[in-house]
Amino acid sequence: MPLARIDLAEGKAADYRRTIGEVVYDAVVEVLKASKDDRFQVITEHPAHECIFDPSYLGIQRSRDYVFIQVTLNAGRTMDQKRAFYKAIADGLHECLSLRREAVFISLVEVSKEDWSFGNGEAQYAK
Amino acid sequence: MPLARIDLAEGKAADYRRTIGEVVYDAVVEVLKASKDDRFQVITEHPAHECIFDPSYLGIQRSRDYVFIQVTLNAGRTMDQKRAFYKAIADGLHECLSLRREAVFISLVEVSKEDWSFGNGEAQYAK
Amino acid sequence: MPLARIDLAEGKAADYRRTIGEVVYDAVVEVLKASKDDRFQVITEHPAHECIFDPSYLGIQRSRDYVFIQVTLNAGRTMDQKRAFYKAIADGLHECLSLRREAVFISLVEVSKEDWSFGNGEAQYAK
Repeated sequence: MPLARIDLAEGKAADYRRTIGEVVYDAVVEVLKASKDDRFQVITEHPAHECIFDPSYLGIQRSRDYVFIQVTLNAGRTMDQKRAFYKAIADGLHECLSLRREAVFISLVEVSKEDWSFGNGEAQYAK
Repeated sequence: MPLARIDLAEGKAADYRRTIGEVVYDAVVEVLKASKDDRFQVITEHPAHECIFDPSYLGIQRSRDYVFIQVTLNAGRTMDQKRAFYKAIADGLHECLSLRREAVFISLVEVSKEDWSFGNGEAQYAK
Repeated sequence: MPLARIDLAEGKAADYRRTIGEVVYDAVVEVLKASKDDRFQVITEHPAHECIFDPSYLGIQRSRDYVFIQVTLNAGRTMDQKRAFYKAIADGLHECLSLRREAVFISLVEVSKEDWSFGNGEAQYAK
């Protein structure tokens, strides 16, 4: 059910961006326990100076590779699941793209089951 | 009051995208009972491979025309209103653009009346 | 902690957009009392006709300079803080860019402290 918005600076290959999407999807299924094939993602490239981040907030050293990931998802995940989700994404991006774990921003927005339509104008998750 | 973000693959005419905006606006006014002229929308085109969706999740056959619509709106709509909203958009896009009803993704994000400023730095909806 | 998405019509200099980001950041720190250096912003330019707004909803005269600002932030701000936040942004943009105060749209989306990771795959704000 999640919708993931992925924003990053331009200059990477299309494959690089697709891999980010795959890593996020894998974490959605494996950690958040979404169903297989539950993948909806919008990726946007920006001029580098329009993806703005502080380079050292909270003592974390960020670099130009910084990636913004904002995920809209159903409420109900535990704190442990959220922690595991953040870690899975940072680890996955590090493994697949050698992206530094410092370079991953994640923001969650919780909504209700009735707040989704995946096609046909129906509310597939609503009771 | 809603803010609608509309994301879709590039390759359509500007008129096509404008019509999507009009259909969403009509549903906002007619179904959600927003005031006339309450229209605030941001449309973004993306390379097709950066609008990512599973082609058959939940048994719905999606195609490259798939449109992502995410609407931030005030909390308080009933489940019936949300269902009617999804249906109105899917029906409207089908009628106006011959878009298949399967090709419409809608995500709602509920907020409070005090979470909006429409200009002048004031919170127009807050009591 | 806020993530600010700033969307506006193309045609302005990069400096203009950067200044919008600075004004939003200043209001985040001074009014919302976020920590210094808590700055995370994504700016997107659009063709003018894809930033859609009603020119007179609620009696406010909007112009092509209209700027959309959507801020995801932790819940807990008072109504007074939100009002002051809207005013600080509209005043700041007016002072720094001569942007009319009518031309500023702001939408807030409240989330929880555990809904953020600023790097390292950790939930820095969670207890």
